Amino acid sequence: MDVGIYGLGIMGSSLALNIADSGFNVSVYNRDNERTEVFLVNNAHKKINGFKDIESFIKSLKKPRKIILMIASSAVDKVIEQMLPLVEKFDIIVDGGNSHYKNTMRRERELFSKDIYFVGLGISGGEEGARSGPSLMYGGSKKAYELVEPILNKIAAKTRAGDICSAYIGDNGAGHYVKMIHNGIEYADMQLISEAYFFMKKAFNLDNLRIAEVFEKWSEGELSSYLVEITSSILKYKENNEYLLDKILDVASQKGTGKWASIEAFEMGVPANLIFESVFARVLSTLKHERVIASDILKMDVGSFEFDLSDWILDLYYALLVSKILAYAQGFMMLKMASINYGWDLNLGKISLVWREGCIIRSVFLEKIKLAYDKNPHLINLLFDEYFLEIIKKHHKSLRRIVSKASEIGIPLPVFYASLSFLDSYSTNYLPANLIQAQRDFFGAHKFERLDSKLGEFFHSTWQ
Amino acid sequence: MDVGIYGLGIMGSSLALNIADSGFNVSVYNRDNERTEVFLVNNAHKKINGFKDIESFIKSLKKPRKIILMIASSAVDKVIEQMLPLVEKFDIIVDGGNSHYKNTMRRERELFSKDIYFVGLGISGGEEGARSGPSLMYGGSKKAYELVEPILNKIAAKTRAGDICSAYIGDNGAGHYVKMIHNGIEYADMQLISEAYFFMKKAFNLDNLRIAEVFEKWSEGELSSYLVEITSSILKYKENNEYLLDKILDVASQKGTGKWASIEAFEMGVPANLIFESVFARVLSTLKHERVIASDILKMDVGSFEFDLSDWILDLYYALLVSKILAYAQGFMMLKMASINYGWDLNLGKISLVWREGCIIRSVFLEKIKLAYDKNPHLINLLFDEYFLEIIKKHHKSLRRIVSKASEIGIPLPVFYASLSFLDSYSTNYLPANLIQAQRDFFGAHKFERLDSKLGEFFHSTWQ
Repeated sequence: MDVGIYGLGIMGSSLALNIADSGFNVSVYNRDNERTEVFLVNNAHKKINGFKDIESFIKSLKKPRKIILMIASSAVDKVIEQMLPLVEKFDIIVDGGNSHYKNTMRRERELFSKDIYFVGLGISGGEEGARSGPSLMYGGSKKAYELVEPILNKIAAKTRAGDICSAYIGDNGAGHYVKMIHNGIEYADMQLISEAYFFMKKAFNLDNLRIAEVFEKWSEGELSSYLVEITSSILKYKENNEYLLDKILDVASQKGTGKWASIEAFEMGVPANLIFESVFARVLSTLKHERVIASDILKMDVGSFEFDLSDWILDLYYALLVSKILAYAQGFMMLKMASINYGWDLNLGKISLVWREGCIIRSVFLEKIKLAYDKNPHLINLLFDEYFLEIIKKHHKSLRRIVSKASEIGIPLPVFYASLSFLDSYSTNYLPANLIQAQRDFFGAHKFERLDSKLGEFFHSTWQ
Repeated sequence: MDVGIYGLGIMGSSLALNIADSGFNVSVYNRDNERTEVFLVNNAHKKINGFKDIESFIKSLKKPRKIILMIASSAVDKVIEQMLPLVEKFDIIVDGGNSHYKNTMRRERELFSKDIYFVGLGISGGEEGARSGPSLMYGGSKKAYELVEPILNKIAAKTRAGDICSAYIGDNGAGHYVKMIHNGIEYADMQLISEAYFFMKKAFNLDNLRIAEVFEKWSEGELSSYLVEITSSILKYKENNEYLLDKILDVASQKGTGKWASIEAFEMGVPANLIFESVFARVLSTLKHERVIASDILKMDVGSFEFDLSDWILDLYYALLVSKILAYAQGFMMLKMASINYGWDLNLGKISLVWREGCIIRSVFLEKIKLAYDKNPHLINLLFDEYFLEIIKKHHKSLRRIVSKASEIGIPLPVFYASLSFLDSYSTNYLPANLIQAQRDFFGAHKFERLDSKLGEFFHSTWQ
């Protein structure tokens, strides 16, 4: 057998079928044998063999073995321990789940000392992607990559131009790192779409069908993306003659990668506020009980406003487009910084190509990012690429109009706010951080640098 | 000798003198003996004895010994190791630095097993506070507290009413935790003041002297605080006939506690966006080079606006007051959550009393917080206290006006933005998180709860 899949959850099952359809012989194993049986009954596939014990599962594989773990990240260490006596030198264990990149780095180090290759493979695209073509981010040994590349290239998503949405990203944790940033951007993308929906619903007073039409229209231009597309479908979808969306509790869940990306932004000192404010929005939504009380006892009168929809919908469109550019710019700021910190030498253009199809944030937009980095791999910031710069210059006023109006009439748009606050902070050459430094020196003698002195030269004043 | 101080930096020296002045005999030690000598020469004090080696330093102390470490947090483990052979059962080692509370918890556990008490003592107030009365937050054993309480009570700041700004906060890491939140609030407080200064400078076109006058006036009312006070002094201060503030490089430094508080907010899932956006603002300021480029090539035309100052300065005042309430509310949300997570049983009223004087965020305002928790120790949220509720109801429109205008004319006020976005999100009973949940279910079968079903019951739809 060419490859083994350990774990037959939604993602593992889908991936096994995808690999088998691509012409490889797949061994599958699941801790709970019943799940394996059900999977085999539902998916009779001549290229798939199921195993009831881990030993025969591993023995069934061609050497060097290629085993993909599709399990909860909390179980990875245990499963590795269980497999260690059974695998041999140069076998390759691939973690296809959402593990924290620091764990992946540690595991790679530990297994490397035993001559076992450990790979952190970021997989995006949900069930559908795993089944028919995910986006794949490989982090680990280049030698091992040569052995798994044919499989990954076969099963990955492809762009219309035929480019493969799978790549060798870098050593050890690089694949899972890039997946984490992908998810951070996904959080921001989803939240921005939700805020646009909310603004149309609360400010414009549009109904679901009309909002769905707006998103459909937007799908034709620069914002064409999987997330905008499914948003229209969601808005139109009815069960028992009622819109299902309106029946859903407004408490957002999360699995942790957005939180990881936020914490990473603070650890590295990258001001990725669109990413962490989108996590904030999910967290805040969970305080449903307090929100209901607050909405009752605060009762803030904010007045109302008549909207000329033809203008305002266009403003909202451009506000969303500008904010989306900023969210991606922040994600790439993080990648750039991590690339330096960990010596990964990340190819940012290649990463945007990998996200072009197959994954949740797939969009036309990523083509433009790829072009930007192709043109200039050393771009200081994505915003400085001509294409994105022009959009911001031309349309920042739309974002201003939306934020200004939302703040006046009391519609919370945390990530739109974060977007404008980032844009204006980032493009201000003299910020009030001088006062922060003065205060710190005043109460704590922490010293400051001066405009009229060399950088790195520090001064203290008595301030009297 | 009654107490030993290990480490004679600015904070250690000041604390040693404060303790000696309070009538206790103090032994001092510093790794670098020269510093000890200089300290003793500059501060001849009959109650202070210096030691050149750690053994005689420790032997000089009355048992059970009380040793306060005033050293960099990175050195704490090493110094403990060095002292372990010299201390005895029931001796008390106090870490008076800014250690991460998780390290304090670990150290307490490790030393407890050796019958040594380890205390994490949060100290705020900078040099001046340490010298003449800091705010003290004790975390550790209650038994050991009885032995050090007389010293702490003597050296701590006092309110005008005679209350002592020192308290037993809770077990193990509680003192350092509360200090971390204090610092998180301090970051927000400083950033809000900086943004108010920036708005007066850029939007109102006021000069430093006029801005100083505004802050002086504000110092008379609800905003009366140490930070507002020193801001006026800073604004007026000249060196060589030029305002020093205008010569300071706008790149804000940080020592890490704000970052810790932000990461903690994400770890716990508390939406403390005023705290983490204030860290964002400092981090963003460090990208000076990119900001200068961006301000040059983005050149966003935003137009100008005539301000009727008598109205607008009042709006700015209330925007600051409302935002300050929200910053503190978020800090106390974190304390409340941590109290549950770690079983600390924190007394929130007592904590606000401890911060009332001595520390950097000392203010009249904290009196109101104490009153709120005295009235109702189980307050769901500080915002729900009548006093704060009334201010928000009456003045949220001022915050709206400032945010709305700033976004229109392009003045970055990240924490004012965060403040309004929190207020409006927190008081919205039905947020667009329903769409986030629908998207997650659409692409990942992550399921959702329904408004018309019991909480905890999850549903999945095929969405077609």
